[in-house]
Amino acid sequence: MNHIVITIGREYGSGGRLIAQRLSEELGITFYDKQLISEVAKQTGFSENFVRDAEHQRPTNSFLYDLYCAVQAPSVPDQVFIAQARVIKEAAARESCVIVGRCADYILRDREDVLNVFIHAPIPYRAERIVRLYGESDAAPEKRLEEKDKRRRAYYKHYTNREWGKSQNYHLSLDSSLVGVERCAQLILDVARTPGEPN
Amino acid sequence: MNHIVITIGREYGSGGRLIAQRLSEELGITFYDKQLISEVAKQTGFSENFVRDAEHQRPTNSFLYDLYCAVQAPSVPDQVFIAQARVIKEAAARESCVIVGRCADYILRDREDVLNVFIHAPIPYRAERIVRLYGESDAAPEKRLEEKDKRRRAYYKHYTNREWGKSQNYHLSLDSSLVGVERCAQLILDVARTPGEPN
Repeated sequence: MNHIVITIGREYGSGGRLIAQRLSEELGITFYDKQLISEVAKQTGFSENFVRDAEHQRPTNSFLYDLYCAVQAPSVPDQVFIAQARVIKEAAARESCVIVGRCADYILRDREDVLNVFIHAPIPYRAERIVRLYGESDAAPEKRLEEKDKRRRAYYKHYTNREWGKSQNYHLSLDSSLVGVERCAQLILDVARTPGEPN
Repeated sequence: MNHIVITIGREYGSGGRLIAQRLSEELGITFYDKQLISEVAKQTGFSENFVRDAEHQRPTNSFLYDLYCAVQAPSVPDQVFIAQARVIKEAAARESCVIVGRCADYILRDREDVLNVFIHAPIPYRAERIVRLYGESDAAPEKRLEEKDKRRRAYYKHYTNREWGKSQNYHLSLDSSLVGVERCAQLILDVARTPGEPN
């Protein structure tokens, strides 16, 4: 197989991360996720925890914070994004790999060798999964999912000016609750290995 | 195979209609498109041409037209939509079938036996296709596609209050330029015949 980069956007609890891991195992290529964050951390001197938390930081209403933002450009979360984007671009240029999240589809939009995938599923399916498989509390998981969706949508919109989960931004968008996590992986592998005949 | 209804939403020129035809042939089930319109026409007494054109009708800015709208509810396009929705619901209840367009995914959202698919492709790919395969003029096909996309988006939004092509509204969204028209059909057939194992 030629050089290939697969990006996986996913709704929390949909199994997208598991699918990405399966792809990297099957194809024998690097899986970028926490590892990516770690690499960013090394390059920029940020601590890992700092990078992991950066996208959740919100400006306060403090005047001093506003003043800080006005004179310090780009903001800290933007610096993190820029550093991550650099790592993603370098990885994609260097090696075949699977990259989960981090707007990688957008960051790599000018490359020809990228397969962009989005994995989603209805909230009840994901709620059951995060309680059963991730060991999360069974108190109102639906509400936490809505909050997560909202945050990912806002993050994606902020850095790409695109709509998160808009099918036209991906080659494949799959509902893992119907297709099944394992079959999602098989289906993506099939397309990655042998692109279709246009007609 | 059990009773199944497949709805295909598609961007103009993406091959979605061809994919739907292949599915109906392979599965030996009815293909609803012009035939659907014809059935609506019979049930409602509208002429076929009238129904076909109804979604393209636009209100004028005339005061008399506004007055007409205010006192005559629902509007003629809305009546057409209502009649089509009834035909779609009856067809889905009666038989396995493939339905192209007409917001069928939304109309059938309460059924459990529906596989919703969206087929899309980048504009350059579709532009080449509509000139080569549909015999359309090669003068600025990209512009016509943008206009078509805009109209379909507005139509879908008007009747469903949803975003056209939002991946979460479909089980499968496929880029036919990468996957290939024939393989899109095979992939949908595979999922239709054997739903995946949730995990």
